Amino acid sequence: MPEQITLYTSSASPYSHAVEIALVEANANFKKFEFDLKNKPAWFVSKVNPVGQIPAITYGGPDVPPDQPSPDSVKLRESTVLLEFIAELFPGAGLLPKDLVLRAKARLFLEISKSKLFPAWFGNFRKGEPIENLFAILEHLQAMLPPTGFVVGGYSIADAYIASILSRADIIFENNINTNGWPDDEGARILETLRGPRFVRLAQYKQDLFERPSFKSTFDKAALTEKYKGYFGPQPY
Amino acid sequence: MPEQITLYTSSASPYSHAVEIALVEANANFKKFEFDLKNKPAWFVSKVNPVGQIPAITYGGPDVPPDQPSPDSVKLRESTVLLEFIAELFPGAGLLPKDLVLRAKARLFLEISKSKLFPAWFGNFRKGEPIENLFAILEHLQAMLPPTGFVVGGYSIADAYIASILSRADIIFENNINTNGWPDDEGARILETLRGPRFVRLAQYKQDLFERPSFKSTFDKAALTEKYKGYFGPQPY
Ligand SMILES: N[C@@H](CCC(=O)N[C@@H](CS)C(=O)NCC(=O)O)C(=O)O
Ligand SMILES: N[C@@H](CCC(=O)N[C@@H](CS)C(=O)NCC(=O)O)C(=O)O
Repeated sequence: MPEQITLYTSSASPYSHAVEIALVEANANFKKFEFDLKNKPAWFVSKVNPVGQIPAITYGGPDVPPDQPSPDSVKLRESTVLLEFIAELFPGAGLLPKDLVLRAKARLFLEISKSKLFPAWFGNFRKGEPIENLFAILEHLQAMLPPTGFVVGGYSIADAYIASILSRADIIFENNINTNGWPDDEGARILETLRGPRFVRLAQYKQDLFERPSFKSTFDKAALTEKYKGYFGPQPY
Repeated sequence: MPEQITLYTSSASPYSHAVEIALVEANANFKKFEFDLKNKPAWFVSKVNPVGQIPAITYGGPDVPPDQPSPDSVKLRESTVLLEFIAELFPGAGLLPKDLVLRAKARLFLEISKSKLFPAWFGNFRKGEPIENLFAILEHLQAMLPPTGFVVGGYSIADAYIASILSRADIIFENNINTNGWPDDEGARILETLRGPRFVRLAQYKQDLFERPSFKSTFDKAALTEKYKGYFGPQPY
């Protein structure tokens, strides 16, 4: 019998969503424990992840309820570490291709999504950094895509990672959620560019990402939209 | 015959050094092309790495001189991507252990070195951020070490990565190189802490790292000290 896996997550967290997608892709048998980041349980920090972040997983050990983590399970964290772990634990899922050069390409795409795309997206809607920063990185990533299909052909951890970011960016733009006093049509104007001639291949890729069953079954757009409005929209105080 | 490998590097670059250590550990047959970052050849950007950074490698294709890269080789970049690639290309070198949990531990250590240790070190000597930030991260990493040996027992890419940072930090502190008007004894005081009771295990680990043949054969401390004094020391203009 395979070891137990428990994923600690929150719907708001893109990093956690990527890991959940990978687990679903792998057809893994796992428990999921969700909490609100503004209401982090004390036991989570003391017993699961000392740095208090999600995603985190416990692996192995006895079959315990998620809110009573066993000292005997392995505790793992950091989304990229978890994605590699899941890819290795379930090699049959093909979450990294066999070819070593293609594996490197998947990892490079993921690395750029993590170290460049995410900060540019966040920097834009949270800190008012120029949208062109985000567009330039999206253009760079778009140029790395093959003519059709996913980053390295079959679905990989690179796709899981960026799906979690791009889907959340859409929510932000579609609802003009920001903390910078954006004009009322800022989100709409950004979407116009993203749906225009500059990003044709990216738009197709996004559609492929969002139609993937592992994505659909782990993404509740309406609920997340409400959450993001509460987190990042105009504050009542 | 294995594919050709050419590493583009500069002695000043910690990321590049880590990749070179991994290639030496793997006993790989590779060419090395060094250039000064202040004198980057134009062909490097147009033919090897469009974002202009080192480390970068060409893999495969015809056997060409490094300054005449072939369009037919694969171009790879990003130190962490390259380290994973080398570990996979030379599985016999054991640069990642076989056990999946230990692999995750090596990757977590590397990730913290990259996203936390490096910025804290740089932030301190370049931007005057509190040395306590750096100490706290070193303490965290120290606590992840086993009682003896390397991060996951045998030498891994996590060790190669941090060796390149810790060795450069020593040069900075030993020579009090900074751009913040440090007092004359700042470096010495930092070293006193690093050599004191708080960092006993780390000090032993550093010694093990620096005695590793793959490290010694790729690190010219005297030459790099002169270079760093030129880069980061008091400027003549
Ligand atoms: N580098 C981490 C980042 C994880 C992270 O920032 N998680 C956020 C949620 S998206 C979190 O847990 N924040 C809560 C906190 O730091 O207290 C990863 O990739 O897993
Ligand atoms: N994230 C990259 C960083 C590489 C990097 O910053 N390289 C520096 C030297 S240490 C560089 O090439 N700088 C020259 C430039 O950006 O023009 C990696 O890990 O490989």
